[in-house]
Amino acid sequence: MPAKRIVVVGGTAAGPKAAARAKRLNQAAEVVLLQKAPELSMASCGYPYYVSGGVADRDQLLCTPAGVVRDPLFFAGAKGVKALVGVEALAVDRQGKTVMYRKAGMTGTESISYDKLILCTGSTPRMPRFPGGELEGITALHSMSDADRLREIAMKGKGGKAVIAGGGLIGMETCEALASCGMDVTVVEKLPGILAFLDPELSMLVENHVRSKGVKILTSIGVAGFEGSDGHVKSVLLDDGRALDCDLVVMALGVAPNVKLARDAGLVIGETGGIVVDAHMRTSDQDVYAAGDCVEVYSRLTGGKALAPYGDLANLEGRVAGENAAMGDRAEFPGTIFSGICKVFDFAAGSTGLSRQKALDAGYDVITVVNASPDKPGFMGAKLLVSKMIADAGTGRILGFQCVGAGEVNRQVAEAAMAVMAGMTVEEACMADLPYAPPFSLAIDHFIATAHILDNKMRGLLKGVSCLEVQRDLDTGLKPYFLDVRGPKEFEEMRLGIGEKLIPLGQLRSRLDELPADKNTMIVTYCRVSMRGYEAQRILEAKGYEHVVVMEGGIMAWPFAREK
Amino acid sequence: MPAKRIVVVGGTAAGPKAAARAKRLNQAAEVVLLQKAPELSMASCGYPYYVSGGVADRDQLLCTPAGVVRDPLFFAGAKGVKALVGVEALAVDRQGKTVMYRKAGMTGTESISYDKLILCTGSTPRMPRFPGGELEGITALHSMSDADRLREIAMKGKGGKAVIAGGGLIGMETCEALASCGMDVTVVEKLPGILAFLDPELSMLVENHVRSKGVKILTSIGVAGFEGSDGHVKSVLLDDGRALDCDLVVMALGVAPNVKLARDAGLVIGETGGIVVDAHMRTSDQDVYAAGDCVEVYSRLTGGKALAPYGDLANLEGRVAGENAAMGDRAEFPGTIFSGICKVFDFAAGSTGLSRQKALDAGYDVITVVNASPDKPGFMGAKLLVSKMIADAGTGRILGFQCVGAGEVNRQVAEAAMAVMAGMTVEEACMADLPYAPPFSLAIDHFIATAHILDNKMRGLLKGVSCLEVQRDLDTGLKPYFLDVRGPKEFEEMRLGIGEKLIPLGQLRSRLDELPADKNTMIVTYCRVSMRGYEAQRILEAKGYEHVVVMEGGIMAWPFAREK
Repeated sequence: MPAKRIVVVGGTAAGPKAAARAKRLNQAAEVVLLQKAPELSMASCGYPYYVSGGVADRDQLLCTPAGVVRDPLFFAGAKGVKALVGVEALAVDRQGKTVMYRKAGMTGTESISYDKLILCTGSTPRMPRFPGGELEGITALHSMSDADRLREIAMKGKGGKAVIAGGGLIGMETCEALASCGMDVTVVEKLPGILAFLDPELSMLVENHVRSKGVKILTSIGVAGFEGSDGHVKSVLLDDGRALDCDLVVMALGVAPNVKLARDAGLVIGETGGIVVDAHMRTSDQDVYAAGDCVEVYSRLTGGKALAPYGDLANLEGRVAGENAAMGDRAEFPGTIFSGICKVFDFAAGSTGLSRQKALDAGYDVITVVNASPDKPGFMGAKLLVSKMIADAGTGRILGFQCVGAGEVNRQVAEAAMAVMAGMTVEEACMADLPYAPPFSLAIDHFIATAHILDNKMRGLLKGVSCLEVQRDLDTGLKPYFLDVRGPKEFEEMRLGIGEKLIPLGQLRSRLDELPADKNTMIVTYCRVSMRGYEAQRILEAKGYEHVVVMEGGIMAWPFAREK
Repeated sequence: MPAKRIVVVGGTAAGPKAAARAKRLNQAAEVVLLQKAPELSMASCGYPYYVSGGVADRDQLLCTPAGVVRDPLFFAGAKGVKALVGVEALAVDRQGKTVMYRKAGMTGTESISYDKLILCTGSTPRMPRFPGGELEGITALHSMSDADRLREIAMKGKGGKAVIAGGGLIGMETCEALASCGMDVTVVEKLPGILAFLDPELSMLVENHVRSKGVKILTSIGVAGFEGSDGHVKSVLLDDGRALDCDLVVMALGVAPNVKLARDAGLVIGETGGIVVDAHMRTSDQDVYAAGDCVEVYSRLTGGKALAPYGDLANLEGRVAGENAAMGDRAEFPGTIFSGICKVFDFAAGSTGLSRQKALDAGYDVITVVNASPDKPGFMGAKLLVSKMIADAGTGRILGFQCVGAGEVNRQVAEAAMAVMAGMTVEEACMADLPYAPPFSLAIDHFIATAHILDNKMRGLLKGVSCLEVQRDLDTGLKPYFLDVRGPKEFEEMRLGIGEKLIPLGQLRSRLDELPADKNTMIVTYCRVSMRGYEAQRILEAKGYEHVVVMEGGIMAWPFAREK
């Protein structure tokens, strides 16, 4: 029995999608959308590009592809949805099936009844209560009004000093926006590295790139408070006692789901802090659905529940909630594999599935590999990509894939996401039939090449060592025999300077007598990207050396300081 | 028992890959590669970009990423492979396990014995025997020397007239190369459309784009012969009696597998004309493998055998053949799904899986949809993509996906190829978790949006009609009621002019009285991309109209002439 009136709370991503889908499927229903902000369907993931001025016009964030602003008039005419803006939902009476709300600027409240309710209450930036937190000049980048304010500051910000608290996705996007406007930017991250969805060796490569743009990054350091004068922030106090001068602080410490309305109404909230929903996006009340940043979703890879506040998932969840509210529970949202990507200056950084640590935490028998290789042929203007593939050693299933660099990260992470979703094994990925032409990829696509290397490693052909392990050995005074097998010209231009011996691969077979005579010597081979390093390992093993390992990704994946 | 000597015949793609892989896995083996051409490991898919001058230096097509030319010295030193160039294999004695060959410029023959043999004899351009076919100025683009010759002509070709026989992948890439050098180019294609891996409505969009670049395209017309003067081609005779003046003819009618060596040796040749191999890439002789353009491979979607002369597959097949020749049959090549992509001026065109017709031929119960939508948000500089998804109506399995346009075709076809390989259903693709950020994609990725539309169609929510059917109706005098639901300004700027009525979607609910009173009227709705067209269909159906269909892809997918 189709619902008569469907009320949707929230109008950014999941809400409008749910409302429009519900109305399309059930034209007889009355669909009402309550939105607290003055805007609807804001492209909130685009805020950093609006702040930087890359997006010239505010309306571009609020328009349909045909150039129509998505205002209540648009929703009424084009979507058949009654959208009320500046309307804050205050309480849900589940017994009476009504939502109480207040219009902006009004003191009294009103209420609306529903047959089905969809909560898309979104999230709020985490703003810990630091001393001085009330000073002006401390903001998040979460709402359209945040974006307006930051843009104004950025536009006249040349030479100004900004501190960004948090080196996650939003933090790094905001960092780029402000730095590109000529601001002096420092990122402060409490974790050991930025972009926590990346494993450390890849995160460090992005960090190096961001630093090369003149941005300062402080890691393993938290914010402790703020000091100001005349009510305006003047410095950020760090938890190691230092202070950073600044005119602007952007808080980018992640978001928390907005669940007050749901909790007050007695709906079940999960351990993650999000509203509990089933695969139909239905809450613990059979007439109430929820979607978007406010819910916790199923993790396809761990079986557990997780917060996944991504704009794309909000749309997919809203689509399911809208359909089920309108037509009865028939659509299902299968959960997330945590796919994400962000642009960081001339790099992109993307990830799908589980990181190494998350895969270990989930109980998998983890094996990984790092691959540095170009995105397309050199003669087509190749750019480098550095990737890490994470698999279950027992089954060979690909659990995760991360990719960073100046090359085309986008295609790589998208195809990896498909592979992870499909439960593809490393062996299957080795023989993937992907579109190839020189303007677009290598004959052996970077993702496939990564699978080849991991497959070689899983079968004991390639014995890899991470640059992190090499650095740890160096730090602790352990000194394996380092063999760089590049050419002399390459060696002159760039080298690690960790006591390595240079023997070009082409000469290795004839210069074996220069190697340590003891076949038990630990030898670490590498080259620019460690393809030649792998050849060298195979050659040395055949000559009886027992402990030869390849440094995965070679010099291009080395995130530490080099001699030159 | 590892092989002692492995002989590889052919040195372009599959051969070098097989040889290098074999040696890496079995350092004790002697690996010998026989190559007829003077070059090794040519990036032959890059020839069109060398012809156009986009690739400045010939050596770039022959180099490793580290800038070393892959010559016999490189193969000996870096790969441990003995590569002989200018050496033509003449015969295989399978009983005696020897290959007889001749060195360039020599009259006598020599022979080499093998334990395992790998045939990577490649393919040859199809050159039908037309009258005048011996004239100078008629060439293919298949070998490095073809590329050298064409480049020389192209570099001084400004104003010259070129005819390209064949509008397939190589034909269109060569067309772009010559046109970009200022030549007057005409493409002659015997089939009704160019790029036969595309369905007609997408192929026509590419055709329109190519024509907009000043190239002439003649379809459904074959070449009948050539006329010349002083031994040089001066015109192409067409099978409709016309003649095209020209200084240059490029034959791009596809390639045929080189199987003479294999056939003469008594190896089984398949019905497709390629060497028969099993999943281990082993021929009918247990000591002979084959890989690359000369073999026929398994089609993962039809179960049959097919020729798939793609550079990427040659590498994957070579990798399997090399491993098995070196170590015994343990690696398997699972076959092809026919993924491909090509750049055509500012467009890309890609395809994976089966076309509609091939899916019908394979016995599937086919359902398709066309989707026109941007690759990313408008505020990030969106470009349009037009895609077609082909699925099995019964199981929902995605069988094929094609995509053309100025937008990022690359990612779309790569993720679709993964979906097709994994046997993903349309419903599963609807809920794919892909990497999203505004610089890279829409919140609902184009591929997912295509799945949404096809899912809506499979469930009877969206009733689609192809632009081809609409045109056919118009041609036969059938006149449904056409309803364009865009805005008046859009209508002024661009419209089909097929007798359509304009009612903007936002006004449709209040202007229903302007529609035909007869609820049995056949109504075709559309807009720019038919998202609003779909909303209109749902509205009209709810009002009792029985025969409302959406023209899939809207005006942006309309390949025929428009009023404006």
